[in-house]
Amino acid sequence: MDENQEELEQHFQQLRTELHQNQLQDFREHFLDLHVYDQGQFYQGLSADERHLVYAYLSPDELADMFDVIEEDDEHVEEYLTEMRPRYAAEMLSQMYTDNAVDLLNELDKKLVPQFLSYMDSEHANEIRELLHYEDETAGSLMTTEYVSIVANQTMRSAMYVLKSEAELAETIYYTYVVNNDNQLVGVISLRDLIINDEDAMVADVMSERVISVHVGDDQEDVAQTFRDYDFLALPVTDYEDHLLGIVTVDDIIDVIDDEAASDYSGLAGVNVDEISENPLKAASRRLPWLITLLFLGMTTATLINHYEALVSKASILAVFISLITGTAGNAGTQSLAVAVRRLAISDDEDKSFGQLILSEILTGLVTGLVTGVTIFVIVGIWKSNFILGFVIGTAMMAAITVANLAGSFIPMLMEKLGFDPAVASGPFITTLSDLTSVLIYFNIASMFMDRFIN
Amino acid sequence: MDENQEELEQHFQQLRTELHQNQLQDFREHFLDLHVYDQGQFYQGLSADERHLVYAYLSPDELADMFDVIEEDDEHVEEYLTEMRPRYAAEMLSQMYTDNAVDLLNELDKKLVPQFLSYMDSEHANEIRELLHYEDETAGSLMTTEYVSIVANQTMRSAMYVLKSEAELAETIYYTYVVNNDNQLVGVISLRDLIINDEDAMVADVMSERVISVHVGDDQEDVAQTFRDYDFLALPVTDYEDHLLGIVTVDDIIDVIDDEAASDYSGLAGVNVDEISENPLKAASRRLPWLITLLFLGMTTATLINHYEALVSKASILAVFISLITGTAGNAGTQSLAVAVRRLAISDDEDKSFGQLILSEILTGLVTGLVTGVTIFVIVGIWKSNFILGFVIGTAMMAAITVANLAGSFIPMLMEKLGFDPAVASGPFITTLSDLTSVLIYFNIASMFMDRFIN
Repeated sequence: MDENQEELEQHFQQLRTELHQNQLQDFREHFLDLHVYDQGQFYQGLSADERHLVYAYLSPDELADMFDVIEEDDEHVEEYLTEMRPRYAAEMLSQMYTDNAVDLLNELDKKLVPQFLSYMDSEHANEIRELLHYEDETAGSLMTTEYVSIVANQTMRSAMYVLKSEAELAETIYYTYVVNNDNQLVGVISLRDLIINDEDAMVADVMSERVISVHVGDDQEDVAQTFRDYDFLALPVTDYEDHLLGIVTVDDIIDVIDDEAASDYSGLAGVNVDEISENPLKAASRRLPWLITLLFLGMTTATLINHYEALVSKASILAVFISLITGTAGNAGTQSLAVAVRRLAISDDEDKSFGQLILSEILTGLVTGLVTGVTIFVIVGIWKSNFILGFVIGTAMMAAITVANLAGSFIPMLMEKLGFDPAVASGPFITTLSDLTSVLIYFNIASMFMDRFIN
Repeated sequence: MDENQEELEQHFQQLRTELHQNQLQDFREHFLDLHVYDQGQFYQGLSADERHLVYAYLSPDELADMFDVIEEDDEHVEEYLTEMRPRYAAEMLSQMYTDNAVDLLNELDKKLVPQFLSYMDSEHANEIRELLHYEDETAGSLMTTEYVSIVANQTMRSAMYVLKSEAELAETIYYTYVVNNDNQLVGVISLRDLIINDEDAMVADVMSERVISVHVGDDQEDVAQTFRDYDFLALPVTDYEDHLLGIVTVDDIIDVIDDEAASDYSGLAGVNVDEISENPLKAASRRLPWLITLLFLGMTTATLINHYEALVSKASILAVFISLITGTAGNAGTQSLAVAVRRLAISDDEDKSFGQLILSEILTGLVTGLVTGVTIFVIVGIWKSNFILGFVIGTAMMAAITVANLAGSFIPMLMEKLGFDPAVASGPFITTLSDLTSVLIYFNIASMFMDRFIN
């Protein structure tokens, strides 16, 4: 890929020169020869002045293909659209796939949207308006209306004719959806079917009637799971009476999978990893809310230890093991949390009761706690020649780990039950919470055996 | 989807009855009517005895389509293949897409593979043997050899003819690759191009010569990134002299993206979240290695605190803030780690030097540390009416956070430089390491001001 990259850089340099020297024809030819993604890379590297030249050299239609690829990832989208003449921008939006145009418009200040829509012809404007209404992160918000649909009562030849005439505008032509007179989805034909079957065969005989579809209100994670399971390139979206409303294509699903993964990862780390900014001040301002919140939660742990200060001043050896116990329990809680979040995300074992899953996690906690507790019992017993102290540390460790495991699994499951995304349950939150319970357990056990382990 | 699920369950029940009552024709008709993914769901729910009936009722070819979907996810793959007659299994493997057959064979005991290959015709066996050689997690290990390629010097009509004849066997027919006489990749035509262009046009005139391809040795993450960027459904794979070797399809890339996300998530949590087992003993045995390793690392922190025990017995108030400082620094380190891992995964800013990135992270640490430190200075100062103690805690907090940020970003970047996957840098490892540095900083600062904050 590296030689490609270099070649591309040269190409970009040449395009820039052509732009500056008003070589309209050369620029157009060389620019349109690029893959749309590379066009986007070039465009995004330009200054505002250079971009204005691009708007003069290219038609809205030509720019639309490129904007289909740029879509929401770029933080400058609003700048791009507002620097174009409104009529040009509206025309370009009309020429984009509806789902991508909607994604762009969703990035804009809400007040700007009606202006762009007012410049469009009513058909495009209405399609966009409709899609703008769907709730974020549902099948409806992902779908586009550029699909090919036919009725069953025709030959493959005539179906192919319809397909050819719509091929240029459709986002995918690899599936043709078959609907009845009421626009209800009744079948699907892949382009492969169209190509390999006899031209005189009837669509009704060839089509697959077991169409897998998603509902317009389905969560995007469920839609992604259906894509994973069935390896589709596109899925039809219907309302609750099977009327075909649109399709979701696999490229949008890849974005969904990436977004979901990033948000799970962010949740576990207690920081939004996707807003990557190079500016340390901005980065700090993103991280501080969580840190300060957790600092206050941590203060309750400090207050708790403060309560036991008399104990510590009598047996300062207790201070030695605070961070070991809180740290290990925190590690166990983080593991438990990650496993629980993952299990909730991928499995459909709704049949397994809440209680069973929690019980299984408590048992896991007991086993890991037992092994870890015995290990530290032996280490401390030998190190300090004091097996009663070892017993105190070991028992506290075991109890703290079990409780941390319980918290790590219970909290995300509770969130799921309450309808929140369990992935938001953050690792740092669990470790800070587990610090509190661990300290409580530790000092209570220690005070019980106080007279025994002080030599 | 829920009504579908119920309908499917009834269907499965019926299939089972037909299987038991030897209704060969009915079973075949109803089974083959299912989507291959659902066929797999049914098959995976059967007992060994029932599966033997399936092997009697279905041809290897019919079963192959289903096994294309089951592939590596199922832990019982070895059981399935070894319970079939070897010749039946070999025939089924031949009929699968080569990449999927290779994935299956990679799940087996290495000793079993030659037997299966020996029953195949030499063409299939050689194709599989070749793909088995590619290193795991490279483009080569993902690719399949079932693609359609043509030469440029022909009309669209004749290209379409070739495509139709190969359509049934190819894994994707949506791109046709154009090669020269030396099998070097020179162009690509999408099926859309084939359909909308004039039948008499020459392939050479219509094809796109800017083919984006990947090298056979490219890392799967880079391949996935190319799919993300360009929204392709398939990508050609070449050797280093542009010879076309195979294609990678988007369904395999979705698996790659899922696997990479799960492994990043696992790394951050210090547990392999993908081996989900319901058995608490097994779960514990997966988690213990990390926990025990970190316990030993944590012991060094305990030893360090032990070293300062005299200090603690003089000023037991110091014990109150140990977990607050280690916990908060650990949280900051985890944030820093997650951001660094994510940045390394998605960005190509190789131009930014190692030093710059580290510097930016130290600055972020200083800012977050300063804000957090001042906050805790005020809280402790007021709470304990002792601003010198507050100053000690605040300064220690600030320094500990800065060091944790440094460690959280430096460690994954170092791993990347050394050629390891930075995502393996685990959150619990960073927090446990940061416990050590935090305690060291804390007690050193405390001992400096010892005489001042004890009233």
